Amino acid sequence: MNGETAAHENPSEPAVVRRDKHGVARLTLNRPRQYNALSLGMMQAIQAELNALAKDTSVRAVILAGAGKGFCAGHDLKELRADTSRAFYQEVFDTCCRMMTTITKLPQPVIAQVHGIATAAGCQLVATCDLAVAAESTRFATPGVNIGLFCSTPMVALSRNVPRKQAMEMLLTGEMIGAPTAAQWGLINHAAPDAELEAAAEQYAQLVIQKSPHVLKIGKRAFYEQCEMGLDEAYRHTAKIMTENMLHRDAAEGIDAFLGKREPQWTEE
Amino acid sequence: MNGETAAHENPSEPAVVRRDKHGVARLTLNRPRQYNALSLGMMQAIQAELNALAKDTSVRAVILAGAGKGFCAGHDLKELRADTSRAFYQEVFDTCCRMMTTITKLPQPVIAQVHGIATAAGCQLVATCDLAVAAESTRFATPGVNIGLFCSTPMVALSRNVPRKQAMEMLLTGEMIGAPTAAQWGLINHAAPDAELEAAAEQYAQLVIQKSPHVLKIGKRAFYEQCEMGLDEAYRHTAKIMTENMLHRDAAEGIDAFLGKREPQWTEE
Amino acid sequence: MNGETAAHENPSEPAVVRRDKHGVARLTLNRPRQYNALSLGMMQAIQAELNALAKDTSVRAVILAGAGKGFCAGHDLKELRADTSRAFYQEVFDTCCRMMTTITKLPQPVIAQVHGIATAAGCQLVATCDLAVAAESTRFATPGVNIGLFCSTPMVALSRNVPRKQAMEMLLTGEMIGAPTAAQWGLINHAAPDAELEAAAEQYAQLVIQKSPHVLKIGKRAFYEQCEMGLDEAYRHTAKIMTENMLHRDAAEGIDAFLGKREPQWTEE
Repeated sequence: MNGETAAHENPSEPAVVRRDKHGVARLTLNRPRQYNALSLGMMQAIQAELNALAKDTSVRAVILAGAGKGFCAGHDLKELRADTSRAFYQEVFDTCCRMMTTITKLPQPVIAQVHGIATAAGCQLVATCDLAVAAESTRFATPGVNIGLFCSTPMVALSRNVPRKQAMEMLLTGEMIGAPTAAQWGLINHAAPDAELEAAAEQYAQLVIQKSPHVLKIGKRAFYEQCEMGLDEAYRHTAKIMTENMLHRDAAEGIDAFLGKREPQWTEE
Repeated sequence: MNGETAAHENPSEPAVVRRDKHGVARLTLNRPRQYNALSLGMMQAIQAELNALAKDTSVRAVILAGAGKGFCAGHDLKELRADTSRAFYQEVFDTCCRMMTTITKLPQPVIAQVHGIATAAGCQLVATCDLAVAAESTRFATPGVNIGLFCSTPMVALSRNVPRKQAMEMLLTGEMIGAPTAAQWGLINHAAPDAELEAAAEQYAQLVIQKSPHVLKIGKRAFYEQCEMGLDEAYRHTAKIMTENMLHRDAAEGIDAFLGKREPQWTEE
Repeated sequence: MNGETAAHENPSEPAVVRRDKHGVARLTLNRPRQYNALSLGMMQAIQAELNALAKDTSVRAVILAGAGKGFCAGHDLKELRADTSRAFYQEVFDTCCRMMTTITKLPQPVIAQVHGIATAAGCQLVATCDLAVAAESTRFATPGVNIGLFCSTPMVALSRNVPRKQAMEMLLTGEMIGAPTAAQWGLINHAAPDAELEAAAEQYAQLVIQKSPHVLKIGKRAFYEQCEMGLDEAYRHTAKIMTENMLHRDAAEGIDAFLGKREPQWTEE
């Protein structure tokens, strides 16, 4: 949640900046003076970038970062008070939920690179990414309860990463936790020294882009699908996926390369 | 589980004592000689207090504690052996489950303040509360398996707080764990030095009562509802809740107070 | 996943060895030169042993271990490349899933005793057992993504033990984790000094076999059933199970023994 000045940005400065390098797309939230608050425009800009990434087979991993002093402070509070209609609120929260589920459904792994603060819907963004690394000095919170707006959409992602009592503590008290606690609770994968944050995110990206894009895509999708199934259904579903995976060229190639002690050559998607 | 003497209490000593102070209701289980065993009468007394609390808008947080040497030792074993009819057993366990779900559905946050022992349905009570703090010397167990009565209702709450292997370890072995382990596994939020237990519980209560009661109520309810939904349904549900929340006076007040750097004035429920 | 030599074994050496002692059955995967790779034959041999154990009331606990340098390296890659038909793959993965769910449905608790490596479906075996203890030097991974075969069936068990971000890290990167990390993440119960591994597994078995076999059976089944239910349904279900449990002779005996400070005598199943 952010209440800093200036909802209007310089039109020459896009709300989200994308830079690609060797198969890794880096998306940087770029409203630094507003702690990258998720105005409707910001969320639409992120959505547009995600839609483009989903179809871009040159991209094998996505890093999501924030410009300025913090990763993301959540919704834009001034905007939420400027138009107080039900229609606007529904649009804001629907847009936010669509953006979050688009990350979950993106074919490529998404890695959050987090610094400064990640609060409310900003904390939800971290929880939503497939992997997350944070600078040791980062602070996380779901503080909506402090301003009369319970973090009800953030709790969806938070409670699917963090144990129940710990999620409730964040939601009911609104208090900050540090990055080491976030790592211990499962909200992030790793707390890195501040100076090594970008390198740590890159390291995950480099590990990921060595894999077959096709196999990453089916594996990531299978993961979130089976999470919502009972055990028997989950096994029926994933046994079919394994069978199809074995029939794909990349499994044959990967196994033959492994047995032959050589590097695999993956198919392009 | 408790087998200590004297199922009959002094009628001048109620099974549960309630004391209110500045918006915090403190419920104390008060069968200290029986380690606050959950006899049918005890559970009915707790249920009556919870029903009253649910309608009492002067109460903004509840602390649940136990008198005497321990928090709660679970069901009253002597009582379970005195009436061995199916009807009685069904009544006991139905009453227990209703009491537990009433805590989950209570509009106010419920904080367990735990000392000594919390075993079987007593451990379940801790797992069921929204937040829990324990004295460092507290021991937790689900030891029903040792007396031929598997902790099947306690496992419902336990397995929704504690990872699967760790829950199974408690259930299959019946062994005790200490408070630091309980905190690490997610069964409680915090293990406090014994002398600071009450202060630690109060601290959570004080954080909670600063918030809008309306917003706590909708947030707590949303949390447990969305836990049981798939991702898409959870987002549809909570996006609606966020929209309604934004249309409530307390969100407007809370955001305006935050932007104006002043204290918010919440509506009374 | 294993690519070592010799899919053919000496017929005088069974793929799985069972040894019983004082109510504890020890199943040892016995293809040491192949890191106990789960060939179709190996899985069928395990399935046959599990089917026999399910009906053997003399067995009160099962320890699952591996012969040679590691616990289990997952599927047999040479076999998967020798017959590349859809029918064979479907048979392999269906057989694997049936074996895993049979462990979950076995009346007796199953304890994994893990050393060396537990990778891919071998890591899944660990996650699937009710309890697991590993030597401190053990390494765990779900490295299928490295060879073009995402660990989609292993993720079912993994993601039901390990928090989401940590499970995703293992699945997307394929990197190894050590036993202390596995214990911290919930994949295993305990990391023991290498020299004490077998003793640590035995210790769990000894705790378990003191309990009523009937009560272990209903408790274990109830656990996995209620995991898949919403809260209200889970309580309705387990309240019935508790009532039936109280009406069983072992509860009466167990409670009376506890109250009388003597050892209980359980019924034979």
